[in-house]
Amino acid sequence: MTKTRKAQYGVGAATAPAKTSKSTRNRRPAEEKLAELKRRLHEIDDLTAAGAALGWDQATYMPIGGAGARGRQRAALSRLTHEKSADSTLGKLIDELEPYAATLPYDSNEASLIRIARRDFERAIKVPSDHVARASAFGAESYEVWKRARPANDFATMLPFLQRGIDLGREYADFFAPYHHVADPLIDDADEGMTAASVRRLFAALRADLVPMVDSITEQSEEDHRRLGYFGESAQLAFCLSVIKRIGYDFQRGRLDKTVHPFCTRLSAGDVRITTRVFENDLTQALFSSLHEAGHALYEQSVDPVLEGTPLGRGASVGVHESQSRLWENVVGRSRGFWEYFYPLLQRTFPGQFDRVRLDTFYRAINKVERSLIRTEADEVTYNLHILLRFELELKMLEGTLRAKDLPEAWRAGMDSYVGVVPPDDRDGCLQDVHWFSGIMGGGFQSYTIGNILSAQFYAAAMKAHPNIPKEIAAGEFEPLHSWLRENLYRHGRKFKPSELVRRVTGEQMNTGPYLSYLRAKYAGRIRA
Amino acid sequence: MTKTRKAQYGVGAATAPAKTSKSTRNRRPAEEKLAELKRRLHEIDDLTAAGAALGWDQATYMPIGGAGARGRQRAALSRLTHEKSADSTLGKLIDELEPYAATLPYDSNEASLIRIARRDFERAIKVPSDHVARASAFGAESYEVWKRARPANDFATMLPFLQRGIDLGREYADFFAPYHHVADPLIDDADEGMTAASVRRLFAALRADLVPMVDSITEQSEEDHRRLGYFGESAQLAFCLSVIKRIGYDFQRGRLDKTVHPFCTRLSAGDVRITTRVFENDLTQALFSSLHEAGHALYEQSVDPVLEGTPLGRGASVGVHESQSRLWENVVGRSRGFWEYFYPLLQRTFPGQFDRVRLDTFYRAINKVERSLIRTEADEVTYNLHILLRFELELKMLEGTLRAKDLPEAWRAGMDSYVGVVPPDDRDGCLQDVHWFSGIMGGGFQSYTIGNILSAQFYAAAMKAHPNIPKEIAAGEFEPLHSWLRENLYRHGRKFKPSELVRRVTGEQMNTGPYLSYLRAKYAGRIRA
Repeated sequence: MTKTRKAQYGVGAATAPAKTSKSTRNRRPAEEKLAELKRRLHEIDDLTAAGAALGWDQATYMPIGGAGARGRQRAALSRLTHEKSADSTLGKLIDELEPYAATLPYDSNEASLIRIARRDFERAIKVPSDHVARASAFGAESYEVWKRARPANDFATMLPFLQRGIDLGREYADFFAPYHHVADPLIDDADEGMTAASVRRLFAALRADLVPMVDSITEQSEEDHRRLGYFGESAQLAFCLSVIKRIGYDFQRGRLDKTVHPFCTRLSAGDVRITTRVFENDLTQALFSSLHEAGHALYEQSVDPVLEGTPLGRGASVGVHESQSRLWENVVGRSRGFWEYFYPLLQRTFPGQFDRVRLDTFYRAINKVERSLIRTEADEVTYNLHILLRFELELKMLEGTLRAKDLPEAWRAGMDSYVGVVPPDDRDGCLQDVHWFSGIMGGGFQSYTIGNILSAQFYAAAMKAHPNIPKEIAAGEFEPLHSWLRENLYRHGRKFKPSELVRRVTGEQMNTGPYLSYLRAKYAGRIRA
Repeated sequence: MTKTRKAQYGVGAATAPAKTSKSTRNRRPAEEKLAELKRRLHEIDDLTAAGAALGWDQATYMPIGGAGARGRQRAALSRLTHEKSADSTLGKLIDELEPYAATLPYDSNEASLIRIARRDFERAIKVPSDHVARASAFGAESYEVWKRARPANDFATMLPFLQRGIDLGREYADFFAPYHHVADPLIDDADEGMTAASVRRLFAALRADLVPMVDSITEQSEEDHRRLGYFGESAQLAFCLSVIKRIGYDFQRGRLDKTVHPFCTRLSAGDVRITTRVFENDLTQALFSSLHEAGHALYEQSVDPVLEGTPLGRGASVGVHESQSRLWENVVGRSRGFWEYFYPLLQRTFPGQFDRVRLDTFYRAINKVERSLIRTEADEVTYNLHILLRFELELKMLEGTLRAKDLPEAWRAGMDSYVGVVPPDDRDGCLQDVHWFSGIMGGGFQSYTIGNILSAQFYAAAMKAHPNIPKEIAAGEFEPLHSWLRENLYRHGRKFKPSELVRRVTGEQMNTGPYLSYLRAKYAGRIRA
């Protein structure tokens, strides 16, 4: 009964993307080539977005039985996306468009598109699709195991995954050999232009100022009003919705869900989703993670719509992105003015629970500086020490100077040295962050502190242009700040390198000055002279 | 500043799926070729699943701003999936595996895989990828417009979409020319082996029996206890969850959400999701749509796991699939025994609301036969008349004997003639079903009635093997029926043609006998002699 009639093999191939001969293509006008470039880049963007949608689904609503196949599906999409990104026809097209790009202004959308397309292509061709697929499948599988192993305090289960993550990180770096440090290609992926050496220098300088600052602040004791009482999940979520809506997050083009680890994901310009997590005994988790992710989302929702569907239609780098989550979470969201506006709403949302808590007390409580175990719950000052430790540990694991099995011990020693507390177990120790256990090894942490540094730098630039911003925030008016950021930073998407962008927006290079000034000013009353 | 260093174009291509030369490939043992076939089919399955996940997301949680890009994303995935499905290398591989397949038993997994792979490939190569992508993008766009146009009773807005749907249906059919009727290729896609002529014959015979049956039943008047009172959404959903869990739906491998139009979608063997809709003034909507979709899901969740990820790892045809949704929704879910078990739980779920409603009264209410406007709310007897009308209208639209703009009038005339009622507007008339307005034109409706016919045929076969099934159902024991269906029907997945499968399971060809007997027995007391 098996059918044996011959298929007409040619038909399918004829319908694949047109393969014009080289001579024909060279005669085509640049506009036509640009249109083909955009078509190809749109397809890559569509596949990337599909992968992001599968990731969002996996973190939010996927039943547990779907995990295995989901890993394979995401891997298949990653591999295909990568194949399209490294297609030699794409490379030739970019080559042919170079003379045209040279006739255009550097900051035009078209020249930028061709420039960034080249950067992405040259990076993509160095990495075999097979690696991309394996790394993707590994990340999904490892994440599923970590979700259960962390609450079980089970480092032994995660050890082989950690080792595999390190191996995959090294394997990836080697595609970009030669390099000075094995983490350089990984760091450059997240924060173009940075290296292990330049981040280490930056972090060493920061640590030199932060450690004495923490020493002097944390000697004071504060009653912690964040954790007083019970804050029901639905009320917390309703409050979060009001807050992030007010600062400008557009729910027509996004949504807020709950996940184990909060994140922001861009499925398209019109669909930028954020997630949070709610602890009913701690008001600050849902609130500040919502603000954090909403900061990422404001950036993505404000990129110039004409860049949609191209590699320019998203944030400039991980560090610049993080500057916006930090700006909205900390610089704005933990400012006194912010709470002058929102505290009455908070009091109404949780009737009776804040009646006897003065605004000043609440403000100090949410800005309490203390040596603590969990990065995502850390205050904005000690937070950086958590990052510095992680960055140093992942460099060592990639170098091979720290073995995976020795991580728990190195973590405890590092926490003692960097933060000044030692975790009682791995759950609140080296297992706490998803990064290393979901395929992000190297280049995953430094961006947070780069983001802190840049958040103050961008905010200082905004204040210089609009000194009234703090007053507007205290009146619940966020549009002036949002507009300034949109106009000067967000709308450019990925057109410029991080260093170019920082210079354009602030007039200077990235530097820790404004961040340290911001911290000193904010905690002035609490720093012993 | 534009980078101009030359890319090494070869690298990306070298990482694409290995292109072995023909001579090398022919020397490979069959097992190796079979492994490559599976790898290719798995990739197609992964991409199909990714598309299904995007579809689920669009129907459930996607913000409205994501609609435009989502259409493009789904189209890109459809095009890529289709390109992979029509890849000439896949065809050659299948050719080379034919001699091997001929040495295997017809019903072995391997021979079946090669056989179905050939069927899918030969179908795929007839359709250009461009058509697939356009049809997918059209479906997504049209669906978004329909979601708003239907409640607004706005046929004018939908008219160009309807016309485009007809055009796309014809365009698709023409890839399979010559055909006897333009709808034949579309019907064959859903219900392999059926044609416009064979369905028309089947439906004419059914109509001849159904019309007098409806005439005699509907003259009796029943008080409708389904709609009495208010049934809160969360209580309804909790009841639905209990019911579908009890019949065997596995929530570790699925979930239930709300959508405008209920559906079941398979993202993998471990992730088969269903949706429902809740009307707080009508208990039956959520309940029976949940049972309906759970019937589809029981089928998908029970396919032999070794078929996972291949084209065999899903239901045999749309009609056979529909037989299982109908079996669980109607034959089981509207049976008296089913409610002997579940009625006490229903009474407890809605305290006070059913205290004075006897089980018999409730049973008759949920089986009330009446001429009504909405297909999805129709009883199981008149339901088929709704289908017969739709089938006839779509054949005429595809033939060109009914113009799109004349559909509302033809609908009203048809409802009068087939069902005996005339809708007051298009919202409850020709706009009511999503099918024609989401890219399914032709081949989308006949499967429902084929499903009704087969549901009774399969159930009769199960009863023959296990006459105790009704008693078990009345005791809340669904596993015996579920097991019999799993063993005899579900586990085979798509290994056999619908006609082969029906013969294997029931020992006879598809025929209306058991279905008409089932209806006559169920409604015996209400049919005037």
